[in-house]
Amino acid sequence: MTSTFLKPFDAAWFYVEKAETPANVGPLLILTPPADAPDNFISGFVEQWRQHKTFAPPFNYRLKRNPIPAWEVLPDDEIDLDYHLRHLALPAPGGERELGIMISRLHSHPLEMKRPLWECHVIEGLEGGRFAIYMKFHHGQLDGVATARLFEGFLTPDSSARGMLPPWAVGVYGNGDREVKQQNTTPREGAGFRKSISGFAGATKALIQMTAKLRSGSEAELTGPFQAPNTIFNGRISAQRRFATQQYDLARFKRVAKAANVTVNDVFLSITGGAMRRYLSEFDALPERSVTGQVPVNVRPSGQAGVGNQIAFVYARLRTDIEDPIDRLAAVHSSVAAGKALHESLPAESVAPFTMLLSGPYIAQTILGLGGRVSPAANLVISNVAGPSVPLYFNGAGIEEMYGPSVLFHGQALNITMFSYAGRANISYTGCRDSIPSMQKLAVYTGEALDELEAAVGVRNL
Amino acid sequence: MTSTFLKPFDAAWFYVEKAETPANVGPLLILTPPADAPDNFISGFVEQWRQHKTFAPPFNYRLKRNPIPAWEVLPDDEIDLDYHLRHLALPAPGGERELGIMISRLHSHPLEMKRPLWECHVIEGLEGGRFAIYMKFHHGQLDGVATARLFEGFLTPDSSARGMLPPWAVGVYGNGDREVKQQNTTPREGAGFRKSISGFAGATKALIQMTAKLRSGSEAELTGPFQAPNTIFNGRISAQRRFATQQYDLARFKRVAKAANVTVNDVFLSITGGAMRRYLSEFDALPERSVTGQVPVNVRPSGQAGVGNQIAFVYARLRTDIEDPIDRLAAVHSSVAAGKALHESLPAESVAPFTMLLSGPYIAQTILGLGGRVSPAANLVISNVAGPSVPLYFNGAGIEEMYGPSVLFHGQALNITMFSYAGRANISYTGCRDSIPSMQKLAVYTGEALDELEAAVGVRNL
Repeated sequence: MTSTFLKPFDAAWFYVEKAETPANVGPLLILTPPADAPDNFISGFVEQWRQHKTFAPPFNYRLKRNPIPAWEVLPDDEIDLDYHLRHLALPAPGGERELGIMISRLHSHPLEMKRPLWECHVIEGLEGGRFAIYMKFHHGQLDGVATARLFEGFLTPDSSARGMLPPWAVGVYGNGDREVKQQNTTPREGAGFRKSISGFAGATKALIQMTAKLRSGSEAELTGPFQAPNTIFNGRISAQRRFATQQYDLARFKRVAKAANVTVNDVFLSITGGAMRRYLSEFDALPERSVTGQVPVNVRPSGQAGVGNQIAFVYARLRTDIEDPIDRLAAVHSSVAAGKALHESLPAESVAPFTMLLSGPYIAQTILGLGGRVSPAANLVISNVAGPSVPLYFNGAGIEEMYGPSVLFHGQALNITMFSYAGRANISYTGCRDSIPSMQKLAVYTGEALDELEAAVGVRNL
Repeated sequence: MTSTFLKPFDAAWFYVEKAETPANVGPLLILTPPADAPDNFISGFVEQWRQHKTFAPPFNYRLKRNPIPAWEVLPDDEIDLDYHLRHLALPAPGGERELGIMISRLHSHPLEMKRPLWECHVIEGLEGGRFAIYMKFHHGQLDGVATARLFEGFLTPDSSARGMLPPWAVGVYGNGDREVKQQNTTPREGAGFRKSISGFAGATKALIQMTAKLRSGSEAELTGPFQAPNTIFNGRISAQRRFATQQYDLARFKRVAKAANVTVNDVFLSITGGAMRRYLSEFDALPERSVTGQVPVNVRPSGQAGVGNQIAFVYARLRTDIEDPIDRLAAVHSSVAAGKALHESLPAESVAPFTMLLSGPYIAQTILGLGGRVSPAANLVISNVAGPSVPLYFNGAGIEEMYGPSVLFHGQALNITMFSYAGRANISYTGCRDSIPSMQKLAVYTGEALDELEAAVGVRNL
């Protein structure tokens, strides 16, 4: 049996995981069967899938913890497909509420470490004959971008394709795309570790520079870890999750971005800041300083997929301290730009070590059990993943919506993830059940903040 | 906030619980809506239930572990009903298989210790318009008999009753039956502990006698803990469960019992022994010595309910070593009778301590992590709970079937529980997913062993 060592940042996800903080990530897809679908369309393909018992990476990887964390590749006949593939149904009326409740529960249970780290839930009974596919992965194995790549492998832009393979037959690398695989698998024999260490010099230098700038106030917009105020989102969390979603036309974000000369991501962070300002004010819990988001940035060379995390973090203020929507947008833009500029100044090999250094105090906090008991590294993780840009299909069923239920930690009871897909912005809210009362409000207020920003920028009626 | 100390045997359930061995117990009820039920019958009563936010014991008890395990009573407004009450649906065709899969999964997840230790799942979508209610309790709080008493409180023999209260509004003591409650709550201030200790003298004496008898072979039929052979059911287990059910006319058991001058329980143990003999033979894994069952016995004075366990254990051989069905039945009868006689010779106050002593080596094994690594105390727990004898209804929906998903341990990968109810024998099989291959076969073979026994005794065509 071959095995592949984990990169340090991937391994960290397993060390910080506790019962209250399972490191589960989605995706969640919502699909409409094709117009000519028979009544048993869903149970039909589930039955076909059950017969498909060959597994592509990482669906056949199992975590081996000793002596150092590594992936071992399981032979097909040691994988219990009936365990991983699950057919479920929603109770009537099968609306957004019922789906949100089901996803909350599924997302609260940790993956079983003795088996390959994935589950695939096919959920029928959504109103209008729709269905959902919720896949659960471990963040130590797949990040948001790798998940989006998975879609590109097992889905197709061809609405007439039928008899398609299940996700585990395709894997994250796409259908037999060995070249991409070779580029991305961490080399064996610890070469990944050595490379990491050589990059630390540049990373340490950047960290020292950043700390100096933050101390001197020479770049007012730059923020870093542990600059965040304490909020109600930043205590200890419990094991249960809430999950809510919102979907918007991506064109709305683009119009605002163009009019204000900022990015779509700036618009997303800014309306989230607006929603959070209103939500926290209602609980009389708005901090004086701005809420800070930890924004994962994809650092893969383009065209690469690969198992594991290839992300860095930018810290940005959501400017919950600014009421005016245009002023807030401008300030968010400056904050993100300052964080990005710092990142772009790093030599390529220093990005991963820099992420480790930035996350280091946080990881140490978690291991020491201090998460949620001391000042937070950031108030929330807020993530913007570029998904497929064209409509995709599975066996003729159109993917309508695509969401990213994600990970929480002690000290970070909220994750907001936006997946852009086929001209739509799909935003999901993953929160701790006991820390985020009425989380649905936050989702609704985000939409209202977008309305308000459009009106302010003057693009509402375009 | 008042609190009540746990009896030692109840507390032990919490000490031995691990991620792989959640101490979940059922019940599972299968119901048919009344003939005149509206389409929204199920969602209608679930909606009514959601409004009912007052909680009777033990639905408002929370475990406090320090300094010694105790129940504290939560005020109603600190209980998150939406967490405990869950509305689910089965995928088509909603048969026994789909229900078994769903119950397996629900039963695999541990209860959350920060909250009152119960969940109530209303499951729609069973074929023929039926539905199920699966409640999950912690064995440290409720045993099988207490669960059956719960039914007597929240269900009714009156098929015309409507607008009935949910289980948490009624509690285990029945509707305001304070007298029963007073008799059964463990007194505060540690009196329960003191009483336990005073009973240990008699219990220790009985244990010494039993050990002497087992050693001398003076009572060949008597068996005790650690007399069991090693079987494939007795290794380490994993966290996932399988669940299967079988239902028979109780009259069939009674006819055999009467013809052979034995008890219904003897018949149940004997056909289980027959099924297990065949099943183990197929895996070429039949041990030479008989498989041994640990049989919980209710030791409540009649008319009492009460939170916590009031059970003792009898050890009995299932005589998997005997092929002939009549010889097997006779031998099982002798084995059970020997175990019972020993129990009946105990003074009343020594029963609970005797159970602790009998379980002591097993509990110690579990705490030391030896369960499943050394010889098993018994091969399985096999339980026979006398449920309600008359048909019961909930809001006009008739209870058709009533099962007891139960607890597994390292070293005991199988639990078989029979609930008798309204003239039917409802048998459920709870097994470890990774230790009991094709568990459904065991259920099917039990029915065939019953057929065979009827034929042998000559009561098949009565």
